[in-house]
Amino acid sequence: MTLIHPTAIISAGARLGKDIQIGAFTIIYGNVILGDRAIIGSHCELGVKSAFGDGSPLVIGDDAQIRSHSIFYESSKFGSGLVTGHRVTVMEKTIAGKSFQIGSATEIQGDCSVGDYVRFQSNIFVGKTVKIGNFVRIAPYVILTNDPTPPSNVLMGCVIEDYASLSAASTILPGVRIGKNTLVAAQSCVTKDVPEGMFVAGVPAKVLGRVCDIKLRDGSGRSAYPWIHHFKRGFPDEVTNEWDRLSGSDK
Amino acid sequence: MTLIHPTAIISAGARLGKDIQIGAFTIIYGNVILGDRAIIGSHCELGVKSAFGDGSPLVIGDDAQIRSHSIFYESSKFGSGLVTGHRVTVMEKTIAGKSFQIGSATEIQGDCSVGDYVRFQSNIFVGKTVKIGNFVRIAPYVILTNDPTPPSNVLMGCVIEDYASLSAASTILPGVRIGKNTLVAAQSCVTKDVPEGMFVAGVPAKVLGRVCDIKLRDGSGRSAYPWIHHFKRGFPDEVTNEWDRLSGSDK
Amino acid sequence: MTLIHPTAIISAGARLGKDIQIGAFTIIYGNVILGDRAIIGSHCELGVKSAFGDGSPLVIGDDAQIRSHSIFYESSKFGSGLVTGHRVTVMEKTIAGKSFQIGSATEIQGDCSVGDYVRFQSNIFVGKTVKIGNFVRIAPYVILTNDPTPPSNVLMGCVIEDYASLSAASTILPGVRIGKNTLVAAQSCVTKDVPEGMFVAGVPAKVLGRVCDIKLRDGSGRSAYPWIHHFKRGFPDEVTNEWDRLSGSDK
Repeated sequence: MTLIHPTAIISAGARLGKDIQIGAFTIIYGNVILGDRAIIGSHCELGVKSAFGDGSPLVIGDDAQIRSHSIFYESSKFGSGLVTGHRVTVMEKTIAGKSFQIGSATEIQGDCSVGDYVRFQSNIFVGKTVKIGNFVRIAPYVILTNDPTPPSNVLMGCVIEDYASLSAASTILPGVRIGKNTLVAAQSCVTKDVPEGMFVAGVPAKVLGRVCDIKLRDGSGRSAYPWIHHFKRGFPDEVTNEWDRLSGSDK
Repeated sequence: MTLIHPTAIISAGARLGKDIQIGAFTIIYGNVILGDRAIIGSHCELGVKSAFGDGSPLVIGDDAQIRSHSIFYESSKFGSGLVTGHRVTVMEKTIAGKSFQIGSATEIQGDCSVGDYVRFQSNIFVGKTVKIGNFVRIAPYVILTNDPTPPSNVLMGCVIEDYASLSAASTILPGVRIGKNTLVAAQSCVTKDVPEGMFVAGVPAKVLGRVCDIKLRDGSGRSAYPWIHHFKRGFPDEVTNEWDRLSGSDK
Repeated sequence: MTLIHPTAIISAGARLGKDIQIGAFTIIYGNVILGDRAIIGSHCELGVKSAFGDGSPLVIGDDAQIRSHSIFYESSKFGSGLVTGHRVTVMEKTIAGKSFQIGSATEIQGDCSVGDYVRFQSNIFVGKTVKIGNFVRIAPYVILTNDPTPPSNVLMGCVIEDYASLSAASTILPGVRIGKNTLVAAQSCVTKDVPEGMFVAGVPAKVLGRVCDIKLRDGSGRSAYPWIHHFKRGFPDEVTNEWDRLSGSDK
């Protein structure tokens, strides 16, 4: 059953899926395609007109939940299962895979790509042309930059590869590549590429060791990384079964 | 006299105190108990339903002022004299004492405790299971973390003890205890416990000395810490008289 | 043609210019003077009453664009061409010149001055009594502080001089002066004055060299600083012609 609050403002052109909910004081502009079963909170704006868009609509896949006070521009596209916190901002030409979770107050400046099953905590900043792989985890107040000599016309978005975990308040400098299965410690400033499976910390960040040597703090004595060996919360069976298969083959 | 803007949406179940004001486009859900003389700004949401709450209401004590665009979940409880900036987010199971001040854009993720007379500046992030004592002062963009090996299921919220002062953009790592009457310098990353009365700085933070050796910059030559010896703005007489008594006994 | 959304709430006292647009669910309080051709997004508040104001109105010059969910207090004044992102907060007694651009989620705490053609990216924090010159560029999550021994009654706002470029997540400590044509690297904590034309980095920040020795990353081999020699996007001809004249005289 569709529930649209009477104070919500829905433009005639918007294409809405089945069984959706739209909260009070929310605005849906015309250039929007919203999937089935979407739950949109109050005080949102979806499909904000962009001078930098390509005219294509904002496309939000099925089963999305967008919490209140969030803002999405036109010309972006999200797979199914998008979940956001409050006051998220996503600008034009952001292309994201399925099951993307975006924490409150995060800003994505657009022209960027995000893989499947990526998890952002709160208050993350993603500059234009940044590329993010699959299963990436980003903690609060992480900044992904793009301009090596601000201000300039050179945009070198940083690249975050699969399964990387970026800790709170770390900054990744323009053009830097964060390899697969890496860990960036809190409040690091990463100025150079981080090789696969390594752990970095500091300002500027230095390689301190291999992630597989970091132990879980649960008393088990097990390795904390790769984190897919022990952390499965919020992922579907099809994903965690595959992880188990991969883990098994590691042994 | 109660003043509720005609555009505000108040659920039937909400229990509102006497002489309150509620701004335009604000939503009060049903599971809310709001004290007398509360002033709630525009575009707020109070009592947002939470999957992680315990069913108890959002309880806000007397004489609260919640500025516009703020969001409070159900299952949290605040003493009298709560004051917030704009766009504050407080999630379920946050238990705070009296006279809590929360700066704009701060996010409290819930499952945490806050003592009496705590002062947060803007844009502070408080992770789940963090514990904050009385009279704690926190400057902008401070991050209080909880997961030692992200992502994991281990939550070790940091602990901030009475009268501690955390400066701008510092990050406190999981499980770290910040002792009484301490100072954390700006942009520190605190990886180890800070003993009572000490001053730390850096990434990672190191103990640089005793707070009592830091001088006020007002030309008086007096010690800047413990700050209760000279800073009383915004505290009631009952508190500052007690501070004076304690200071006297220090001499 | 003026377009005021029927859900917007405009106080009788507000003085509105010609050909303005005001979005849905926006509130304009009485103590506001809004210039011609202003475009105000949805869910904003302009002219919020301030206990610390001087009774003077919020004055916004001609051709302003204020994006949605932004909040401006009374007793501040902006030259023509103000442009903001979403969820900007500007408090009382902020005096800014022409063509000020303020990124999303930035908070200006008031009692401060900003010159002409200043560009803020997103999520910048400006404490009270900070002074910012002309053509200053500030990247995301920069914090401009004012209290040398928090909490105290001493306010020593930092000073940012003309053409300075502050990179992401840097913090400028109270009373520090950032000289003309300087570059502060990402995630620096600047504890001492930065001399004109120099480049600093680190926690605490150290002088690493002259900005003129930093090369553009566009393959041209040219110096990246002073940035006015190569970066002109968004500035009017009258400004860039003057820059060209100055550059010419450098040679």
